[in-house]
Amino acid sequence: MIRVQYNVYMKRIYFDNAATTALDQEVLQTMMPYFTEKFGNPSSIYSYGRESKMAIETARKSVAQQLNTKPANIFFTSGGSESNNTAINGAVRDLGCTRIISTTIEHHAVSHTVEHIKKQNQIQVDYVRLDALGHVDLEHLELLLASDAQTTLVSLMHANNEIGNILDIRRVGELCKKYNAYFHSDTVQTVGHYPIDLQEIHVHFITGAAHKFHGPKGVGLLYIKEGVGIKPFIFGGGQERNMRAGTENIYGVVGFAKALEMATAGYAVDSVYIQSLKMYMRDALMQHFPGVTFNGDVEGKSLYTVLSANFAKSEKSEMLLFNLDMHNICASSGSACSSGADAGSHVIAAIAPGSNAVTIRFSFCKHNTREEVDAVIDCLKIIL
Amino acid sequence: MIRVQYNVYMKRIYFDNAATTALDQEVLQTMMPYFTEKFGNPSSIYSYGRESKMAIETARKSVAQQLNTKPANIFFTSGGSESNNTAINGAVRDLGCTRIISTTIEHHAVSHTVEHIKKQNQIQVDYVRLDALGHVDLEHLELLLASDAQTTLVSLMHANNEIGNILDIRRVGELCKKYNAYFHSDTVQTVGHYPIDLQEIHVHFITGAAHKFHGPKGVGLLYIKEGVGIKPFIFGGGQERNMRAGTENIYGVVGFAKALEMATAGYAVDSVYIQSLKMYMRDALMQHFPGVTFNGDVEGKSLYTVLSANFAKSEKSEMLLFNLDMHNICASSGSACSSGADAGSHVIAAIAPGSNAVTIRFSFCKHNTREEVDAVIDCLKIIL
Repeated sequence: MIRVQYNVYMKRIYFDNAATTALDQEVLQTMMPYFTEKFGNPSSIYSYGRESKMAIETARKSVAQQLNTKPANIFFTSGGSESNNTAINGAVRDLGCTRIISTTIEHHAVSHTVEHIKKQNQIQVDYVRLDALGHVDLEHLELLLASDAQTTLVSLMHANNEIGNILDIRRVGELCKKYNAYFHSDTVQTVGHYPIDLQEIHVHFITGAAHKFHGPKGVGLLYIKEGVGIKPFIFGGGQERNMRAGTENIYGVVGFAKALEMATAGYAVDSVYIQSLKMYMRDALMQHFPGVTFNGDVEGKSLYTVLSANFAKSEKSEMLLFNLDMHNICASSGSACSSGADAGSHVIAAIAPGSNAVTIRFSFCKHNTREEVDAVIDCLKIIL
Repeated sequence: MIRVQYNVYMKRIYFDNAATTALDQEVLQTMMPYFTEKFGNPSSIYSYGRESKMAIETARKSVAQQLNTKPANIFFTSGGSESNNTAINGAVRDLGCTRIISTTIEHHAVSHTVEHIKKQNQIQVDYVRLDALGHVDLEHLELLLASDAQTTLVSLMHANNEIGNILDIRRVGELCKKYNAYFHSDTVQTVGHYPIDLQEIHVHFITGAAHKFHGPKGVGLLYIKEGVGIKPFIFGGGQERNMRAGTENIYGVVGFAKALEMATAGYAVDSVYIQSLKMYMRDALMQHFPGVTFNGDVEGKSLYTVLSANFAKSEKSEMLLFNLDMHNICASSGSACSSGADAGSHVIAAIAPGSNAVTIRFSFCKHNTREEVDAVIDCLKIIL
């Protein structure tokens, strides 16, 4: 009976923020005028449309400023997946890349795109080795870069969405520069969560999705380094300076910029707070469940939002996510982006082959509390 | 002085509804819960995400019902341009089409995609002749279909966004069936404006955009006929049954369905009303500006929302759109989707080569009134 009571009285605990976050109400307020009176087409020539255009260009300027680049290098898309597809396709089709260097733990928006292009275009794909903690082996990356003079795209994600490991993006940029390779980084987990200074990093493409940092779903970012001439992925009208066709999602774009402004302003405080929650949960898990282990470099170069825990396989742990759900707790197994179709996580399979554990990803945001962590620990005690 | 006064006292008149429409407040109300409490990831396995999933599947079912097809054939995208790109790319890449039959008056989301694919894949592109009114010459289409046994995609828009001409989509479907060709129709101007019964039309792909019928920007529709196996255009997660990667734009999808429901429910009344406005404006233009002519089949097979008028070129008419704007009147020259970059309309150039007239597209919705038409006519008198 205690479980049912718990369920009924406990409000929802949302520990799946790496999948998607709650839209900030201040962001929504900023978007609202564009849902009501300001609906003009930004690409029209009359002043009413120019208001919308102005809103989009102001958003672009703001995003550029947060990332320390020029507005002309910022393109709005429908989301992180489209941005990653655009960059990788463009690099192969328009920049002449005949080889891609990547890893086996990229998000599917990258890995499936790379696999598809490989099949279509007969390009070469090399996978960089990972070290014991799941970090990209930079020495192996350099070996790969040095071994072949083909025009190469390096595609490495900045932070892994499942285990949180952070890439030394600046060092990878330097290596790419040294060996004259193009560099794409899937930064969907870090834009809005991590200070990114595009003047400091030698990278040709980065990507983002507003809904990962309390912005709206359906809008993404693609940064293209100045002078990198790729063609559109979606052809049609001349929107986004002929780079991305389709009537602009004004609310989304305005929401993206506002959410990023808030994320940037709150970063110093929020990141410390969320990191403390993550470590509080790690400690509590270790204390109450002695067998638990963690994936990735939890105590080292790791994103403060993600904690990936392994529980020993048992009849009870196998149903863990479902039982957490029964208690109104949202967490994730593998990548959350398509758990519905999940056939096990390719990331866990790559970093811990043959692992027999049950992996749960807890991912946090500024709205989470220690009390919520305590409640989840209590609940885990009941379930396991 | 009279112009300035006019401008100050006149509220905006929006006659650019073929470009984009005002979001219906009832549609926005339906979207609102997904901006606030219901933000769960539809692809997660917990019940909170399943609520979002349910909302999306309910929307899919509703859209399928309006179009008389199965939900499994309905895919949500980021807009009409993405949908058109997906269909055309898929037909060439996955269905083996080595020839495309199209026209020179398609929307750029189709024509630029076709041109790009032609360049990349060395496919053959044949253009169907147009008749004097700008209609597709169906005899010529049949000739083209009969002349070559290559696997062919026919891509013809249902209603032209600039001149309003409506294609006999059913007849084209029959021809495609007869000659075993795939048929894609850009229906962005007709979904939500015209009853489309997919059981009655032999078509493999149709497309739509919610913002064309008082739904939100940033969400589109792609119908794929059962059994037509194309791969995704955007690769990544398994969303949209592995057909379109990217975290679902829940608000957009919910808004799309609600807007289409309202459009379908209002069609009988609204279409008659809007058609009467269009003819009222046509008559008034003819009465007050004897030289004016119209593009397309105004009195025949023409969409009730669009009126494309030619004014004799003069110093005054050349600045017509700008002067209308000064009077707070929104209208369009060529296709409105990218007027910012407009180098003259390719549609007008195709149907009236060498024309020296100034073309203005007035496009209407249910919110427009005869009083607005009167005011625009008065204003045109002042300007010209």
